[in-house]
Amino acid sequence: ELQMNLDQIEKNGYDHFMLKEIYEQPDAITDTYRGRMLVDKGIIRMAGVDNNLEKFLNAKRIIIVACGTSWHAGLVAEYIFEDLARIPVEVEYASEFRYRNPVIYRDDIVIAISQSGETADTMAAIKLAKEKGAFVFGVCNVVGSSISRETHAGAYTHAGPEIGVASTKAFTTQITVLSLMALKMAKEKGSISKSDFHLYLRELELIPEKIEKALQSNEHILEVSKKYKDASNFLYLGRGFNFPVALEGALKLKEISYIHAEGYPAAEMKHGPIALIDEMMPVVVIATRKGHYEKVISNIQEIKSRQGKIIGIVTEGDVEVRELADYVIEVPDTVEPFTPLLTTIPLQLLSYHIALMLGKNVDQPRNLAKSVTVE
Amino acid sequence: ELQMNLDQIEKNGYDHFMLKEIYEQPDAITDTYRGRMLVDKGIIRMAGVDNNLEKFLNAKRIIIVACGTSWHAGLVAEYIFEDLARIPVEVEYASEFRYRNPVIYRDDIVIAISQSGETADTMAAIKLAKEKGAFVFGVCNVVGSSISRETHAGAYTHAGPEIGVASTKAFTTQITVLSLMALKMAKEKGSISKSDFHLYLRELELIPEKIEKALQSNEHILEVSKKYKDASNFLYLGRGFNFPVALEGALKLKEISYIHAEGYPAAEMKHGPIALIDEMMPVVVIATRKGHYEKVISNIQEIKSRQGKIIGIVTEGDVEVRELADYVIEVPDTVEPFTPLLTTIPLQLLSYHIALMLGKNVDQPRNLAKSVTVE
Repeated sequence: ELQMNLDQIEKNGYDHFMLKEIYEQPDAITDTYRGRMLVDKGIIRMAGVDNNLEKFLNAKRIIIVACGTSWHAGLVAEYIFEDLARIPVEVEYASEFRYRNPVIYRDDIVIAISQSGETADTMAAIKLAKEKGAFVFGVCNVVGSSISRETHAGAYTHAGPEIGVASTKAFTTQITVLSLMALKMAKEKGSISKSDFHLYLRELELIPEKIEKALQSNEHILEVSKKYKDASNFLYLGRGFNFPVALEGALKLKEISYIHAEGYPAAEMKHGPIALIDEMMPVVVIATRKGHYEKVISNIQEIKSRQGKIIGIVTEGDVEVRELADYVIEVPDTVEPFTPLLTTIPLQLLSYHIALMLGKNVDQPRNLAKSVTVE
Repeated sequence: ELQMNLDQIEKNGYDHFMLKEIYEQPDAITDTYRGRMLVDKGIIRMAGVDNNLEKFLNAKRIIIVACGTSWHAGLVAEYIFEDLARIPVEVEYASEFRYRNPVIYRDDIVIAISQSGETADTMAAIKLAKEKGAFVFGVCNVVGSSISRETHAGAYTHAGPEIGVASTKAFTTQITVLSLMALKMAKEKGSISKSDFHLYLRELELIPEKIEKALQSNEHILEVSKKYKDASNFLYLGRGFNFPVALEGALKLKEISYIHAEGYPAAEMKHGPIALIDEMMPVVVIATRKGHYEKVISNIQEIKSRQGKIIGIVTEGDVEVRELADYVIEVPDTVEPFTPLLTTIPLQLLSYHIALMLGKNVDQPRNLAKSVTVE
């Protein structure tokens, strides 16, 4: 009974840790950039990067190693680093990287991402990379964790404790840290204009209040969830920066509702997955106005002509997708590289509500551990 | 009626083009390496590579662009090139690559893979890579196709016409061509010993007869198919060289049976997908004796403890997986990099039989085109 009361206190009035952590994201992201991003001065300060600036500026390639949701954050970072800092990024499953004798050059930087900082496969990948002489940078949430100690340098996400097994605020704060790193590299390398740099800092500063706004769609998302909770399968589609968000949205639904959901880059649909689409298949399409909007519209039309049900994640005020989709969920506008921080929010809520309606234990789904410390 | 007769003649006694093309693989692979691989002399001759040898030897990175099944062949090639030729490989969805202003260095080589040579997104990716000054190499099946004409050099797969929409022999011959390229680079770079080089040539030469042997499991695979044809979902797991085979096996089932199948690197299962596993879920696990066999065994035990049904793709004579799995399907032994050429075969037959039992049109599945010439 005492435990229950403690739980309730810790949940801070929310029914579940996952919901609490979803709603904590504005604060968590603010905590992550606070002190690091000085918007007025146009400065990003990150000790782990500042102390190794030459390594970052001379790097020819970044290799990101991670598992699960952190791997998805790495995929988002791939798009952000390549776009802003103009450096090629390779994202690897830690479990695959560690066993395949990867080619690592001296001027490669390896970034390991792990919420717990204890993920066994990621830890093993770091050891391998170090043996090969690479500079290894850690992005962890848990302070003093094994990975944070084993890496040459790093940056914490400052998301606060994440209790729900399905990761939410860890994901968005990982993207925030990696965005700060990419922006800092871009500024130092001169691959971003001064005015763009300032614009991006201001936009990143505004993300927490835009997430607050995205969270206001909760009641509407509850309605959408009611409609599709009995679907046995879901597809999630996105392009560019939002392709990894599609993967992450599908993973959330899998993890806590046990519905088979799969994410795909939207254009790959025609190369196979479109065969799955009929009137029983809900398809979540991330279709913000940024990022090849017209191409995504044409993907939506293809789904519609096969009677698929469309849930569009769109920019506020969107007209075109609204006309085609069965439901739309709006998120505020921002610069394209930061759209994942907003489009992720409704997908978290959608999986939360569906899992709850299906009577699942959202905080402790079957078969899953919060931190995978075995291989 | 004339058309029907023509069809029957072209199908050469097989019920469907897909089945015919599955059975053509030993000949198709022989046609692909014939004249190029001189086993006794220890020589690989490929005009497209020979004429540009300096570029290949000085390359710091290979970027592979492709869609669908060709993208899976690219992923297999990533493992082969990195293992044998010790060069980092990045595999990109053509549709993503073309739209994201990728970073391409002067010493990068871009390899485009497309059966038809007409895939619109791949074609656009090639044009972009050429604009950025990259050397672009094509791997196509259709002679004189747009991609074969647009690239600086290339190598045909010589698989012969592929009519079935679900690609089979195109996939294995693509892997064959890319293996020849990797072996040639490895020899020229000195990253493979002379004795290993000869061993690999001999092993590649033996693949066609080993595929013949793998095809002899057809009746057994038919029995397995009967058992699981009514499953609404499948998972496919593999590690290392066989991780992309898991993706490809899942894609085949999706394409022609419309069952939602998804492939995963086996170790990622613990980071989410394992929540899906219960007594209703068949899991196809590629568990050849090569390639971290013990790790895969432990993945199988995890599935089993959640009551998942296990179909193991194993090496001839395997004992351990047989004890744990509901069914095993054997393939002959070979060196690890070539195992995908064998493990793919039972997965093709499994999807063929299941689709047929479900009354689907295996040669022309709904919603799909043989060659995706629109964006």
